[in-house]
Amino acid sequence: MADSKPLFSPDGDPMAAEALLRDVFGIVMDEVIRKGTSASEKVCEWKEPEELKRLLDLELRSEGEAAERILARCREVIHYSVKTCHPHFFNQLFSGLDPHALAGRIVTESLNTSQYTYEIAPVFVLMEEEVLKKLRSLVGWSSGDGVFCPGGSISNMYAVNLARYQRYPDCKQRGLRALPPLALFASKECHYSIKKGAAFLGLGTDSVRVVKTDERGKMIPEDLERQISLAEAEGIVPFLVSATSGTTVLGAFDPLEAIADVCQRHGLWLHVDAAWGGSVLLSQTHRHLLDGIQRADSVAWNPHKLLTAGLQCSALLLRDTSNLLRRCHGSQASYLFQQDKFYDVALDTGDKVVQCGRRVDCLKLWLMWKAQGGQGLERRVDQAFALAWYLVEELKKREGFELIMEPEFVNVCFWFVPPSLRGKQESPDYSERLAKVAPVLKERMVKEGSMMIGYQPHGTRGNFFRMVVANPALTRADMDFLLNELERLGQDL
Amino acid sequence: MADSKPLFSPDGDPMAAEALLRDVFGIVMDEVIRKGTSASEKVCEWKEPEELKRLLDLELRSEGEAAERILARCREVIHYSVKTCHPHFFNQLFSGLDPHALAGRIVTESLNTSQYTYEIAPVFVLMEEEVLKKLRSLVGWSSGDGVFCPGGSISNMYAVNLARYQRYPDCKQRGLRALPPLALFASKECHYSIKKGAAFLGLGTDSVRVVKTDERGKMIPEDLERQISLAEAEGIVPFLVSATSGTTVLGAFDPLEAIADVCQRHGLWLHVDAAWGGSVLLSQTHRHLLDGIQRADSVAWNPHKLLTAGLQCSALLLRDTSNLLRRCHGSQASYLFQQDKFYDVALDTGDKVVQCGRRVDCLKLWLMWKAQGGQGLERRVDQAFALAWYLVEELKKREGFELIMEPEFVNVCFWFVPPSLRGKQESPDYSERLAKVAPVLKERMVKEGSMMIGYQPHGTRGNFFRMVVANPALTRADMDFLLNELERLGQDL
Ligand SMILES: Cc1ncc(COP(=O)(O)O)c(C=O)c1O
Ligand SMILES: Cc1ncc(COP(=O)(O)O)c(C=O)c1O
Repeated sequence: MADSKPLFSPDGDPMAAEALLRDVFGIVMDEVIRKGTSASEKVCEWKEPEELKRLLDLELRSEGEAAERILARCREVIHYSVKTCHPHFFNQLFSGLDPHALAGRIVTESLNTSQYTYEIAPVFVLMEEEVLKKLRSLVGWSSGDGVFCPGGSISNMYAVNLARYQRYPDCKQRGLRALPPLALFASKECHYSIKKGAAFLGLGTDSVRVVKTDERGKMIPEDLERQISLAEAEGIVPFLVSATSGTTVLGAFDPLEAIADVCQRHGLWLHVDAAWGGSVLLSQTHRHLLDGIQRADSVAWNPHKLLTAGLQCSALLLRDTSNLLRRCHGSQASYLFQQDKFYDVALDTGDKVVQCGRRVDCLKLWLMWKAQGGQGLERRVDQAFALAWYLVEELKKREGFELIMEPEFVNVCFWFVPPSLRGKQESPDYSERLAKVAPVLKERMVKEGSMMIGYQPHGTRGNFFRMVVANPALTRADMDFLLNELERLGQDL
Repeated sequence: MADSKPLFSPDGDPMAAEALLRDVFGIVMDEVIRKGTSASEKVCEWKEPEELKRLLDLELRSEGEAAERILARCREVIHYSVKTCHPHFFNQLFSGLDPHALAGRIVTESLNTSQYTYEIAPVFVLMEEEVLKKLRSLVGWSSGDGVFCPGGSISNMYAVNLARYQRYPDCKQRGLRALPPLALFASKECHYSIKKGAAFLGLGTDSVRVVKTDERGKMIPEDLERQISLAEAEGIVPFLVSATSGTTVLGAFDPLEAIADVCQRHGLWLHVDAAWGGSVLLSQTHRHLLDGIQRADSVAWNPHKLLTAGLQCSALLLRDTSNLLRRCHGSQASYLFQQDKFYDVALDTGDKVVQCGRRVDCLKLWLMWKAQGGQGLERRVDQAFALAWYLVEELKKREGFELIMEPEFVNVCFWFVPPSLRGKQESPDYSERLAKVAPVLKERMVKEGSMMIGYQPHGTRGNFFRMVVANPALTRADMDFLLNELERLGQDL
């Protein structure tokens, strides 16, 4: 019957589709899961952009390509991609591979649904609620609200939007022009998303008042208090403080108790950007770094960083129990959130967010947690700390490595001082010459593909390396490798 | 050597990790790819929330679970999830499964990188550029800019933020209070994200002026002109018009040429929300529906909808060649976008966006396009139109189906009039009773798991069904099934 033949089906042939998927999965297993995590393979295969373009033949054409060619393309894409799961990828705040989280991601992608209604995401609506509840309980809250956002930057924006809405509900309808001028406060070391968010939300970057930090990069509560008074004296209304638990470069934890006291005195919303450091809450040994977090109004926490859940997985957690999220963001679209549904429409969480379609970000974290248990995840966090300390001790034993400071988290910041600069600290161009070392070493390691580690200038300090110990598969040998490799790459400098 | 043993590795055992992934992939193949796309299987397995919670045992505990249990959990998650790839899932603007797109998603998830720098995403930085170039060329632009956003709602927000920044660059630093009051314009039928975006961006929902639509749901350019004059008379500055190409419910295309004329006369930014209808640009036969789109300043286009690329895949395209995206959103974070890198830092596209970490959304679309070719994708679009028209013709032949209007796109909106209401159009409670039909049928189809189709009230019309023909695997038999199934489910009403 011609009528029941597919007018069009992918590849025209379900068997071919299955074969393709099986082959691609095989390639992923060989090239990413096995070779990509092997210390004896390269972490990256550097090509200049023009050459890479030529190699990849990226152009999209009219004609389709056969399965063989598509498989070759998958191999090429993987070959020239950076292996973020490699044990010598130290470049970002995420690295490594958790097989359960990846399994959760594969299931998520195959089911391809959107998180907005119980109708089309029954499992994930309930699962998200349960995962958020667990994260909240680690913050110290027995009730509250929350949602997964597309990244920590957007989680931070949500906090700012909720805080201004709570104080001035008019804002939603009438906009910022109906409000007095507002100010929010964050430290010099806060993530750049705070300023980006202030611009995007219409507040402007000037509305972010920068609070001083101490020599370890922690916000100084007395300066916060001073900045608040200054803003008030200018006729500007303070409404939010964003403290950081685990700053991006130095890994510093702001003193939350003292900051919460200030917020309480001034009636300000306390947001904690724990995108990076939130996972420390899992560790009985180290969670004291976030003491006071239970006094926050909102917390941003990215399990895609230290917990290796996979990009993206960022939770915004709220202490609020008054349905603030839904009131602030809801628009009651009648085509999606029909009120005459046959189930409890409170389960349709889509109106809590500013997105419409929203990816399922909870399954990867949930499945990993089920497999490892809270204990397994705690062990990972503790071992990341232990390895970072091991690295610090080893680094101190070697000539040519200079710590920026004793770390309190898993960011280990240091200079590599090459032979020609050792003992030259007093020479007038020392800092300038030292600042040029990291970019050269970075170029060499990337071109060899031996490892990747980030560097940056910071305040008055010239370029230094920021080593991040996050991959749960790391060993002491990888720490030793890092030090040896820097020595090798820099021996002629 | 104790020191070279992993302090911790996932599951402690790479072989176990590989076995797990292989097993999960096998489950996905059986349960999602094969059974989930089979018309003889259920599209969903309805459970009440309380029962589903019990069945899934969602709680996260201290102890981890063995591989066997984890595999069972994957099976359960899939079993109780809605199969959006099923041929009788007609509920949203996305459905179906493209094996190449899914392959691209699996590779993406395994590589787990962020799109922000060439350093860690060399392949994807170049690929995104190439895909955006292709999409722009279909819009009719030989140059321009763009970025993939986490969904069409956020793409729309970007357009609004860019338009206000272009007119008032001060806004970024000084915020909306430094600007005159602003207004943007969108039709009554526009997506709700326009208002949500206006609230989030600090403009307030009142800043969205609602333009009238004709009986087909298309914006009336004369009313747009009138609304602009009205706003100006109130001392408010119009800055943007958001036209819709493919409205969410009716599938209407706003008349872009006439709207572009109005924008030109008043010097307004023209944004086209083509999240749903953008893919029609691939069809030589139907792309006339978007005539004039080349005159837009920005376009939002979601290949995750009609093209089945997978959530999320939403492009914001810009005609701008002045680096507006980077100027508007950039913050030059020194830890990520070092200026002394050894390659051209213009390739670090992360500063174009308000996110920091950003998922790779281009590979799934690129791989599917390589496999199908532009021709293959064009055929899909054309066949979706053809099937929608087939459905309309069949529907007209049957008693008890009443079209809302002749569709010009693949949204087919209609009432099912059950036997007891046929011929009763004149009775005073007809509309009220008719509006109760769709929710009842929806409950029945979901509880049986036979199909899923959305309904909504709309303007003065009571609940009607919105049938969406998007899944490329659909056949005429599926259209016949839909009609038969509604008759069967509603025969006693
Ligand atoms: C402290 C902190 N907050 C927020 C973010 C932003 O998170 P995302 O990259 O998910 O947007 C980061 C990213 O590194 C961060 O370090
Ligand atoms: C016309 C239109 N614009 C924008 C959107 C929002 O897209 P997303 O769900 O990706 O946020 C939709 C979603 O259905 C839509 O129909």
